[in-house]
Amino acid sequence: MSAESTAPAVTMDAIVALAKRRGFVFQSSEIYGGLNGFFDYGPLGSELKKNIRDCWWNDMVRRRDDVVGIESSIIMHPKVWEASGHVAGFTDPLVDCKVSKQRYRADQLFFSPVVVDGQTVGYVSALESEKTAADLQAAAESFKRKKAIQGALAPVAPRDFTEAKPEEIPLIPSPATGEPGSLTEPRAFNMMFETHVGPMRDSSAVAYLRPETAQGMFVDFKNVVDTGRVKLPFGIAQIGKSFRNEITPRNFIFRSREFEQMEMEYFISEDADWDTCHKEWIEWCRQWLISVGLPETHLSLYAHPKEKLAFYSKGTVDIMFRYPFGVQELWGIAARGNYDLTQHANASGKPMEYFDEASKKKFVPHVIEPAVGVDRIFLAVLCAGYAEEDVKDDKGNVEKRTVLRLSPRIAPVKVAVLPLLKNKDALTARAKELYRKLQRRYAVFYDEAGAIGRRYRRQDEIGTPWCVTIDFETIEKDGTFTLRERDSMTQKRITEADLFALLEAQVF
Amino acid sequence: MSAESTAPAVTMDAIVALAKRRGFVFQSSEIYGGLNGFFDYGPLGSELKKNIRDCWWNDMVRRRDDVVGIESSIIMHPKVWEASGHVAGFTDPLVDCKVSKQRYRADQLFFSPVVVDGQTVGYVSALESEKTAADLQAAAESFKRKKAIQGALAPVAPRDFTEAKPEEIPLIPSPATGEPGSLTEPRAFNMMFETHVGPMRDSSAVAYLRPETAQGMFVDFKNVVDTGRVKLPFGIAQIGKSFRNEITPRNFIFRSREFEQMEMEYFISEDADWDTCHKEWIEWCRQWLISVGLPETHLSLYAHPKEKLAFYSKGTVDIMFRYPFGVQELWGIAARGNYDLTQHANASGKPMEYFDEASKKKFVPHVIEPAVGVDRIFLAVLCAGYAEEDVKDDKGNVEKRTVLRLSPRIAPVKVAVLPLLKNKDALTARAKELYRKLQRRYAVFYDEAGAIGRRYRRQDEIGTPWCVTIDFETIEKDGTFTLRERDSMTQKRITEADLFALLEAQVF
Repeated sequence: MSAESTAPAVTMDAIVALAKRRGFVFQSSEIYGGLNGFFDYGPLGSELKKNIRDCWWNDMVRRRDDVVGIESSIIMHPKVWEASGHVAGFTDPLVDCKVSKQRYRADQLFFSPVVVDGQTVGYVSALESEKTAADLQAAAESFKRKKAIQGALAPVAPRDFTEAKPEEIPLIPSPATGEPGSLTEPRAFNMMFETHVGPMRDSSAVAYLRPETAQGMFVDFKNVVDTGRVKLPFGIAQIGKSFRNEITPRNFIFRSREFEQMEMEYFISEDADWDTCHKEWIEWCRQWLISVGLPETHLSLYAHPKEKLAFYSKGTVDIMFRYPFGVQELWGIAARGNYDLTQHANASGKPMEYFDEASKKKFVPHVIEPAVGVDRIFLAVLCAGYAEEDVKDDKGNVEKRTVLRLSPRIAPVKVAVLPLLKNKDALTARAKELYRKLQRRYAVFYDEAGAIGRRYRRQDEIGTPWCVTIDFETIEKDGTFTLRERDSMTQKRITEADLFALLEAQVF
Repeated sequence: MSAESTAPAVTMDAIVALAKRRGFVFQSSEIYGGLNGFFDYGPLGSELKKNIRDCWWNDMVRRRDDVVGIESSIIMHPKVWEASGHVAGFTDPLVDCKVSKQRYRADQLFFSPVVVDGQTVGYVSALESEKTAADLQAAAESFKRKKAIQGALAPVAPRDFTEAKPEEIPLIPSPATGEPGSLTEPRAFNMMFETHVGPMRDSSAVAYLRPETAQGMFVDFKNVVDTGRVKLPFGIAQIGKSFRNEITPRNFIFRSREFEQMEMEYFISEDADWDTCHKEWIEWCRQWLISVGLPETHLSLYAHPKEKLAFYSKGTVDIMFRYPFGVQELWGIAARGNYDLTQHANASGKPMEYFDEASKKKFVPHVIEPAVGVDRIFLAVLCAGYAEEDVKDDKGNVEKRTVLRLSPRIAPVKVAVLPLLKNKDALTARAKELYRKLQRRYAVFYDEAGAIGRRYRRQDEIGTPWCVTIDFETIEKDGTFTLRERDSMTQKRITEADLFALLEAQVF
């Protein structure tokens, strides 16, 4: 067999369709029409997600001597979010359309004056997309035509709504109605979900769903230092759900309202070379992404410009991934100085200092923070791994196959065990025996239904790295079976011991 | 060495102190005074919790052919909770004290008339505790004395506040003030946390934090059937956070407001022998608890009386555990008929039927639901495993040791690797080499600080099943090391291969 990638760039439509078809991701509450910005993970999706988490936890916590884990609660004391700055500042700019009652993120709502012969004759608007400028240009041409204005139309000059001057706002049409006059000035909308704890319903009972897991590490810093036998430099890591009431969730599971984070706070001395440490963590994260199967070619680095950093920030670098909808942030690595611990020390009145035995100095440690979303990695491995190929079978016939090239580390199923024929007891008995043995340690699948080629295709589509076929040679001759490799589609004969050694080496 | 358990019954104080001292469990947001009903898990606690989850997932999902996993969102469409009955009925009876503004769960607020010479002369009240009746009796005596009433005091007859007659309510003193007249009639308080999704704040945007994970399995039932290659009988399992706004959270992590559930819905044919299936799952759950180290002697079964079951319920049996604060529910196994799927079919208009190939019949499957809390298992293994012992060292001196007898399956650290001496490079080099090798697959700890006996004690207290000591025999003679077993404190020499074989057999 040989494969040739038909290689049209992978589309989100194809990814979403596969995710639904094979039970990776469903819309939350789909039978009730869904809930915008919330997703469920199906049988294969929950395995893939667990594998991503477990790989990260093993590499970040268990296999390192300088990082410990915690699990802090999703609902924390509201003062945590006052001290962290989230109550005051964790906002997106929101614009209302008073007529349609639609709401928009101001920085995703673009507009331009329509300029004819050097005169502004009106305004057009469009929601951000991959072709915002073209949409605005088309709208401007349509505007000129409808109003029957003669003259030369200038190219549009898109700005987002946060850049609109007060006198422009009444002139910009609402995307919902097409008419100007109904859009409000942008106002700050806090993205934290609010609830009430305890039987009271007043302001004293207000609490928030955490918008990030990181504050848990800062708030528990002293507890960990006092009980965890840790010495600087050391990290505290956590995996858990966070919630952001996004005005416009989008791009499937990339930006949802409920998501899962894997964050780590690496505490260093105030005298430490933070820049070197920052660079080391950027490289560690990049290598980790490669280790779970993301191609280096899809990754790039983006350093936030100095002038856009918060006053306490020493620098932030994002590892970017090339998604079908554009190059987007996957993993942010921030050097945050000692801002967070200092804020909590001030707000709580509890000292957050660390006593360094070697230097006999007391200080508030600085921190490097690598923060990544499980769902974004999940989407990245689907997008990078997805391919539709023309393959030739032994007879030279061309057929299509869909393949998901997932790393063995994270693939939901590691091995499919297939008896060549369903109706031969000796084959199925040996296949089931092997299956049970593998099942003790690995997620495996047993399949005896259909032609062997079809069974291979099913596994290709869900990313199973290996299929093992039990045939007559297995039971009548040397006990070896056929190992078929997903990506190359090559087959070779191996022993049971070889199979376990392969898995031990590749699945870790 | 020999050990003798001093065996006073383990107290919650001892458990809470150990949990805090060794970083198993912290109060959430402790630096801000804590948040009632919320907890954080520290470095050892997060490992123990992850191990409990992983054991359950491996045994329930990966090692079974008939159960698949999902992860549904915490915030679901509000109609889910209307259909499930939670909006109308997921309530606790709440009593207000109008004077103190305190609130109580009516079924945890006890009262009794004070009867002297056959006459009711007043009422006393007390909050539920292990000695409610004694508290009430003492209060009655005090009442009689203060009022200077002569005569024979009858024994108190405790009832809870939900059983108070309307005419009694004004006469029962508030526990906060000691005076009658301020308690309101009980009213239903819904325990679901409420929030708003999207930029609107009106009733159309109301959503709830799920009070159980189970509804996710019902709502996604059709999606799983359509994509998961499942055939009846089969189960859908999930692990995840749930939230209940308890009026009075208590007993440490036993009843908290944010907790983690492991639930499974096992779908069976409408004609299936549900009673046998129910019994099989009860036994499976009981055996699973034993497999993670709970002693059979601490477990018992409680069948809910028929007259207390919901109308649709065919039966519920709880596996009870003997906690220090009493015998309490650990794992509920409910036979729920086809109530939930039918409710969602009616509310969503989407059919929830299953077509059975064999019988060619279409029906709504019935379900057996084993539901357990991670935090309750966590607390159970701490309580069952905790012991303070008098041990004799080789010289016959008696000392105390605290030991946590955790199963190797869930212990946060599996092996501690200890070089006999810190300042001998050959010892530490070999110890570190072994440590690195073990670390690839297991959570292990390296410790070279302090006398070997003290290092053993540290590991005993956190439940590490084995310590391995690298000594001069290891490096100068046969390469074997000393394996010291936590519970028996026996030592024997083993090879590296033996150690890995031991772990492979015991940690799974």
